[in-house]
Amino acid sequence: MPAHQPIADPAALIAATVAAIRPPDSAAAARADERQARLTKPPGALGRLEALATRIAAITGNPRPHLDRRLVIVAAGDHGVAAQGVSAFPAEVTAQMVANFLAGGAAINVLASHAGARVRVVDAGVRSETPEHPDLLRLRLGPGTDDISRGPAMSRALAERAVAEGTALFERERDTNGADIVALGEMGIGNSTSAAAIIAAVTGRPPRSVTGRGTGVDDTHYELKVGAIERAIAVNAPDPRDGVGLLAALGGFEIGVLAGVYLGAAATRVPAVIDGVISGAAALVAAAVAPEAAECFLASHLSVEPGHDATLEHLRLQPILDLGLRLGEGSGAALGISLCVAACRLLDEMATFDEAGVTDSDSAVEPEA
Amino acid sequence: MPAHQPIADPAALIAATVAAIRPPDSAAAARADERQARLTKPPGALGRLEALATRIAAITGNPRPHLDRRLVIVAAGDHGVAAQGVSAFPAEVTAQMVANFLAGGAAINVLASHAGARVRVVDAGVRSETPEHPDLLRLRLGPGTDDISRGPAMSRALAERAVAEGTALFERERDTNGADIVALGEMGIGNSTSAAAIIAAVTGRPPRSVTGRGTGVDDTHYELKVGAIERAIAVNAPDPRDGVGLLAALGGFEIGVLAGVYLGAAATRVPAVIDGVISGAAALVAAAVAPEAAECFLASHLSVEPGHDATLEHLRLQPILDLGLRLGEGSGAALGISLCVAACRLLDEMATFDEAGVTDSDSAVEPEA
Repeated sequence: MPAHQPIADPAALIAATVAAIRPPDSAAAARADERQARLTKPPGALGRLEALATRIAAITGNPRPHLDRRLVIVAAGDHGVAAQGVSAFPAEVTAQMVANFLAGGAAINVLASHAGARVRVVDAGVRSETPEHPDLLRLRLGPGTDDISRGPAMSRALAERAVAEGTALFERERDTNGADIVALGEMGIGNSTSAAAIIAAVTGRPPRSVTGRGTGVDDTHYELKVGAIERAIAVNAPDPRDGVGLLAALGGFEIGVLAGVYLGAAATRVPAVIDGVISGAAALVAAAVAPEAAECFLASHLSVEPGHDATLEHLRLQPILDLGLRLGEGSGAALGISLCVAACRLLDEMATFDEAGVTDSDSAVEPEA
Repeated sequence: MPAHQPIADPAALIAATVAAIRPPDSAAAARADERQARLTKPPGALGRLEALATRIAAITGNPRPHLDRRLVIVAAGDHGVAAQGVSAFPAEVTAQMVANFLAGGAAINVLASHAGARVRVVDAGVRSETPEHPDLLRLRLGPGTDDISRGPAMSRALAERAVAEGTALFERERDTNGADIVALGEMGIGNSTSAAAIIAAVTGRPPRSVTGRGTGVDDTHYELKVGAIERAIAVNAPDPRDGVGLLAALGGFEIGVLAGVYLGAAATRVPAVIDGVISGAAALVAAAVAPEAAECFLASHLSVEPGHDATLEHLRLQPILDLGLRLGEGSGAALGISLCVAACRLLDEMATFDEAGVTDSDSAVEPEA
């Protein structure tokens, strides 16, 4: 991509985006439900796929939504708190995995291909150098965040910029290539620490109860992780109602960019599919900025990370899948896109009882004498 | 399809099929696991998708299985027990839905298309006339089964023929068009009654505990259904270790054909994806004929029908999805194929740490002093 021009007034872009968010379209949802009742199946027999299609109808305002243009945005960033020994992998892996995304070798590449989605990668603030590549937006808001166990992750100005850049990225992608649905993934050594801190701050739960083992830390490093999160909350005392302040306090750059993508999607009625615990923390930041944005979110899967369950409960979302995933990158969200497509295709393509000449359930057989 | 020649010696075909079933390939499974450990992700981060790919490697004997040729077989049949008022729909709907399958308007058509699978339909024993159609095999083993609440569903000879025809159908399809994976679906007004009777007989659970509301019967008809199942078991006293006898006692023709498909798939190392409660009952019949066949089964989803949980527990299978589905037709199994494809593509297509130049987790950062 060409060199990126920073956004002139991030706060104004965020305010305009939030102001554009409208409530779900209940008329479209009602028309979707009415159609589901006439399709050639017993009422409710497609279970949660019916509710999913109706929710997408409500988000998009289309009673027979089409999800043809599918986008996965993967934002990457490094975390100063990684120096506290909170991860099983060294920070250099963030840039290495960005290269892997661009080369097509990561899980998200395979699962996006499987879902018929294109992948766009963002270097939101990776410590090591990342390459010029047509699929990579190099924002590089900083060389990783500052260590949240010792102070804020970033300045408020940088936090605003991260969010606004995410919104602007989504808008450009939507305007250029189209986006009927977007999945939000991430990569960043140390970022499950940032995410757990955000989840603890927003939900009010004790840090330990929402902290998992991320990429797979052992007991010693797990205790270091919990301790770092406890200190991050004590040192920064974040206000859970101030989304941008929360991001500035606890990071990271990639979480801020994803929060902006969520807001941009909500402002243009595009279903935004949450992946795991970091993607979920970004959804919490977006919902702190604009609570009504959460009406456009879909939960793809229940991560094994304990904070994810708390996040989805806070956002009042039910996950579609429960596969014991804990990878991130948008991997579960890409699978979620595939199920959203299935749900919407059923709603759109199935024949009605009338069209197929199938007898409805009103004429059940009474028992023989 | 051209007029179908009945199988000369069904019992011999079944015996030869059972004799051909081999145990899973543990060497292929070990090689799949070894590869999973080298892919660019934390160990185990793809959760149940990793176990799924490994199971498919063990079934197929290929450590990097490809599931390119995907088949859905939908078997339809009517049930004499429908006369007892056990269903919310009249029997004529079975033939109407067969026509809907052939016209492409049913849920299974949409979900098979979504999974990249072709659909083959079998009239195993539909009461009303079904049309000549290139995608329809018209076995028509009877005008629906006899009423199992009053005696056996069919003769032992017919039960053998149903199973053998299913095996032969699968073999023809595999030889003609290829089949790397097969999903097994069904249609038949009254067949959740037959299925619950089979499940109760095999698992030893009380009929009421494994009987659901099928297409959606009210309380009165639910009680009629439970009563019919209790009488079917009392009248027929089926032996759960005799698969063909179980089928003859409790039906139905479509369940027998599917049991034969399971055996044919197992004999040629093709993963066979169970759908809901009727597809599951057919799997129980197949496993009663040849217990080792169950090693080739995959459970796609957990139906809301209570008998399904008991079936999967008996077969020691964990469902991939839990979406509150209760449609049948192979709908959940087609979604299951899609997830199997995703799991196998991840195993095959992801880059290894070496290939991608990504640092493995051995070099985690120790905390700063």
